[in-house]
Amino acid sequence: MTNCIVTFKPHDRKAEVPPGTVISEAAGQVGIELNMPCGGQGRCGRCAVIVEDGDVQRRSVARLSPEALDEGYALACQTVIESDLVVTVPPQDKIERRLPTSQRVAKIELPFPYDSARDQSIQKYFVTIEPPSLDDNTDDLARVRRALQAQHGIDVQGLQVGVPVLRKVAGVLREAEWQVTVVLETDTWVAPHGPPRLVNIVPGDDTASCWGVAVDIGTTSNVVYLVDLLRGEVVDTASEYNGQIARGEDVISRIIYASKGDGLAELQGLVVETINGLLRELAARNGASTNDVYKMTVAGNSTMIHLFLCLPPESIRLAPFVTTTNQPPPVMASEVGVQINPLATVDCLPGVGSYVGADITAGVLSSDMCSLEQVSLFIDIGTNGEIVLGDCDWLISCACSAGPAFEGAGMRDGMRATAGAIEEVWVDDDTFEASYRVIGDEQPRGICGSGLISLLAEMFVSGVMDKAGDLNTGLDSARLREGDHGPEYVVAWSRETATGQDIAINKVDIDNLLRAKAAVYAGFSVLARSVGTDLGSVENILIAGAFGQYLDVENAIQIGLLPDLPRQKFKFLGNTSILGAYMALLSRERRKGISDVAQRMTYLELSADNTFHDEWISALFFPHTHIGEFPTVMDLLRQKNRS
Amino acid sequence: MTNCIVTFKPHDRKAEVPPGTVISEAAGQVGIELNMPCGGQGRCGRCAVIVEDGDVQRRSVARLSPEALDEGYALACQTVIESDLVVTVPPQDKIERRLPTSQRVAKIELPFPYDSARDQSIQKYFVTIEPPSLDDNTDDLARVRRALQAQHGIDVQGLQVGVPVLRKVAGVLREAEWQVTVVLETDTWVAPHGPPRLVNIVPGDDTASCWGVAVDIGTTSNVVYLVDLLRGEVVDTASEYNGQIARGEDVISRIIYASKGDGLAELQGLVVETINGLLRELAARNGASTNDVYKMTVAGNSTMIHLFLCLPPESIRLAPFVTTTNQPPPVMASEVGVQINPLATVDCLPGVGSYVGADITAGVLSSDMCSLEQVSLFIDIGTNGEIVLGDCDWLISCACSAGPAFEGAGMRDGMRATAGAIEEVWVDDDTFEASYRVIGDEQPRGICGSGLISLLAEMFVSGVMDKAGDLNTGLDSARLREGDHGPEYVVAWSRETATGQDIAINKVDIDNLLRAKAAVYAGFSVLARSVGTDLGSVENILIAGAFGQYLDVENAIQIGLLPDLPRQKFKFLGNTSILGAYMALLSRERRKGISDVAQRMTYLELSADNTFHDEWISALFFPHTHIGEFPTVMDLLRQKNRS
Repeated sequence: MTNCIVTFKPHDRKAEVPPGTVISEAAGQVGIELNMPCGGQGRCGRCAVIVEDGDVQRRSVARLSPEALDEGYALACQTVIESDLVVTVPPQDKIERRLPTSQRVAKIELPFPYDSARDQSIQKYFVTIEPPSLDDNTDDLARVRRALQAQHGIDVQGLQVGVPVLRKVAGVLREAEWQVTVVLETDTWVAPHGPPRLVNIVPGDDTASCWGVAVDIGTTSNVVYLVDLLRGEVVDTASEYNGQIARGEDVISRIIYASKGDGLAELQGLVVETINGLLRELAARNGASTNDVYKMTVAGNSTMIHLFLCLPPESIRLAPFVTTTNQPPPVMASEVGVQINPLATVDCLPGVGSYVGADITAGVLSSDMCSLEQVSLFIDIGTNGEIVLGDCDWLISCACSAGPAFEGAGMRDGMRATAGAIEEVWVDDDTFEASYRVIGDEQPRGICGSGLISLLAEMFVSGVMDKAGDLNTGLDSARLREGDHGPEYVVAWSRETATGQDIAINKVDIDNLLRAKAAVYAGFSVLARSVGTDLGSVENILIAGAFGQYLDVENAIQIGLLPDLPRQKFKFLGNTSILGAYMALLSRERRKGISDVAQRMTYLELSADNTFHDEWISALFFPHTHIGEFPTVMDLLRQKNRS
Repeated sequence: MTNCIVTFKPHDRKAEVPPGTVISEAAGQVGIELNMPCGGQGRCGRCAVIVEDGDVQRRSVARLSPEALDEGYALACQTVIESDLVVTVPPQDKIERRLPTSQRVAKIELPFPYDSARDQSIQKYFVTIEPPSLDDNTDDLARVRRALQAQHGIDVQGLQVGVPVLRKVAGVLREAEWQVTVVLETDTWVAPHGPPRLVNIVPGDDTASCWGVAVDIGTTSNVVYLVDLLRGEVVDTASEYNGQIARGEDVISRIIYASKGDGLAELQGLVVETINGLLRELAARNGASTNDVYKMTVAGNSTMIHLFLCLPPESIRLAPFVTTTNQPPPVMASEVGVQINPLATVDCLPGVGSYVGADITAGVLSSDMCSLEQVSLFIDIGTNGEIVLGDCDWLISCACSAGPAFEGAGMRDGMRATAGAIEEVWVDDDTFEASYRVIGDEQPRGICGSGLISLLAEMFVSGVMDKAGDLNTGLDSARLREGDHGPEYVVAWSRETATGQDIAINKVDIDNLLRAKAAVYAGFSVLARSVGTDLGSVENILIAGAFGQYLDVENAIQIGLLPDLPRQKFKFLGNTSILGAYMALLSRERRKGISDVAQRMTYLELSADNTFHDEWISALFFPHTHIGEFPTVMDLLRQKNRS
């Protein structure tokens, strides 16, 4: 077989290697040292290069987004050379940006072709109104209607006008000398063929801009997209911790807080203030006034939506777990205290039940799984793991109570995924030494969710921990030791940490994580079984949410959190909740699509399902009692002589 | 010709008199002294008797209502005997009650056959809801909808629910153990076929009562009817001076006040507080809670409606006199601060223009003139005289600026029609001495509008004043004298009055009143001419409003304020504005009828009409330049040798 010539740019060095060589080896031969903190195991993503020309085979695509793959990105340590190649080694900072750990938000693409006139319910019309005379002393409002009809062909039959706008009409018309811009909501999703509504009237020609906002109310973080409704583009984004965090980390503690005294009103005020702060920040940065924002769509889990609307959430927590409503009516901004135009519609997207909320329906719509012929599995893991299985004909969902383990809560050294959190760990198969990566390249202060999964996988694969989750205390390593709560493994020594304390994981932590991952996997199994299929028939595994963004698929499969399916089936979608809210903001069709998803989706209550417990027990091993369901993990263990 | 036998009851005395004798004369023959303060001129109504049997001819029916005529009432001094009669002389207090000057409010009759289920948009439904279970964990709101559909056959498709009600749903359902009453607005006049709206949800069975209120916002007085929406009956009424009075007596001064600083908000607060006070009074007196009132209809002139809704009224006052809207949208009680259920609809009825408001459209509907084949003339005289001419096919209206003269304002001794006001005057043809009646039988403090009209008529008929309104200072009477502002006539001497001052009318007062009555009469003429008819073809003259209630038709014709038409054509309707609001409250059909009236009614702007000035000049005489239009006045003057 002929050797292949691999040309590396921008160095312009050429390596000659036999086909089957991995790119990182060829690079090494010509003196190009790629960054490989994971030791060339295809896990960290730092050795990514761009294959400009030629054929390769990617053994792993860990940490590479679909877009990056489209652009030719490949992991040098895991990509096999099959022909002559031209390979570009990007500067290190470019790779940093590609890595999902970088917190920078890339430009959000328009999710579909957008035509404001066709898709958007908020429209501005500039009209010149004939001033009244003794011969024509029709009232002001009728004059506005007449002009809208004559100059823009609007059917003003039954035009709805609230008294707050009405109070401005006479003054604005005269101040503006009868030239005004009228803001109409031409229809709403609740009354798609209903009459238009007069949202505002302002002096002069104000049609050059039109703003809307999409909001994702996460239990942890709130995100706001400022959207140009004329072009459909996200102009800017901002995010902040949900101000409710100080009153409870997860939905259950928030619900409990809400049920005491003025707790509900307080929590409502906190989240609204968080959103208002983000709105002010976005408005100031983009030369807009919050008062000029005429529409808001809101996604979030059912508890967050209840708290945002000040609906009592108690019954969400108590069996049989019902919401006040899964399809909140549209409200006026002034009714909830959101500081956009007070008469703008705030549209909280519909959910399916107490634990499958609007974040999931919005996510499913934005993932497009609901219109594919192939079966997809949609996964959003946070405190609860929400799972949706289905295609264009059917959708079934469940929620598995993973607990806060994956968010680092309740762990010896767990922490949220912020600067100072260990987000990835590598354990040497021979020395059982640990290396790690820290968010923000700081000294570590703890381990976040993705770091915990990475750590579990590495401990398991390297033999530090067995399939039952017991630490192998017989190994010769100072990192394995007896702690206050049984055996533990030290990830970072006190001298390396910001706290001056060792960072470690103990048996209690491991058991918590084991139960959590088992609950998620059992959810997959029960859903698949309930529709008479198996996970192997799933064509797309769509991983949503902030947590998914930082998740390493290999690690997650190794511990049995995700099913062991071909890696190209896995897609990381990022924050699908806000993407769905953004789509609903732009288009009445997409908004209707979310309602359709909510209507179509069956909700399976796992606590009422008699197979769930068995599936959970089976999943209480790394990766699973039925190791046959995890062939690549079996192979890996076999390679390491650990099977 | 045989004599007639007149039997008087309860005295059981019989008089034998020739046919053609008036009843009072026959009574005098058998020693029955009837009360005749006007000297038997058929003006005061005090000599009313009941003709139980036999034939009579009524020469005048002054002060007798149509109902009284139906019951056989006749003025003894003006009723000619034509056969044997049985006549009952009612006790004096019974006559007092009949007279419109009595301020007592009679029971308000149901204005049409009412069927709550058919006519009423507010409905209460008691439902028993199935509690949720793990097998059926549909959300709370969906359960309510399901029960409404199953138990009452309500089409809940698109049921509208505002977030304030939604906030109560979970709590009420559980507190009430799933037995609740749902208050629905099944449709609204703006969306007659739209989806129902959930107005409230309350524990248990609350269907035994259902309240609504009809409100008339007069410039001077506000009236509230508390209505049982199940039976359609007015349960109680209350009225009070409009709290805005202290900020201006008439609409123009209110508009000026509203345009300064916070004047508008202040005036809005004042009228709302007046209404709220009446609501509290009615609720307390009838064991209801204001929060249980689920609907309010509001009639009033366009300025009052603007102030109530806090709409800037400036343009009503300035040419070309336009309102913000003649058809205000329905608002929530909470939006205007009215203390009924905060989510109840407050429906301000539609008007026609700046000076023909909802008080007139409501009045026209309640008068039924809009469905008669005959032509009717509807008159509501206050500060402005609003006039409507028409039938079932056409309606035309105008407003003539009568000024406040008829309300006693701007007069030397004018006052509002309250206790102490002279409300009727008689001037002796020979001695020119005055006698009068005072509201509340007190010592007089001034003269109210009806008193002024009565005084003008008596002065004119007796010759104290000529047709140009000049006082006949050559007469031999101490009452005619030169005052500070020219000649004046003394109605009450200082020794008789509560103030210790003479009460008199002077030339300036007379000229004011002359201009005012001429404006009203010119309005009639212009309206009639504009549709190519004359006043003689009018079959019904419908006199609305509080002022109309106290008006003496003979006096009003004698001065040329009302046209000289057969007396049976005149009907006094009382407060037709609130009657229309009451009808609109009961029935969506009647509510639509008011909108239809507002749509159908043409508005003639007198200031833009070039015949109005000529008509006004012609009317600047008592009764009119063309005396031929006033045949009965001509006859009367001839009888008195004054023609």
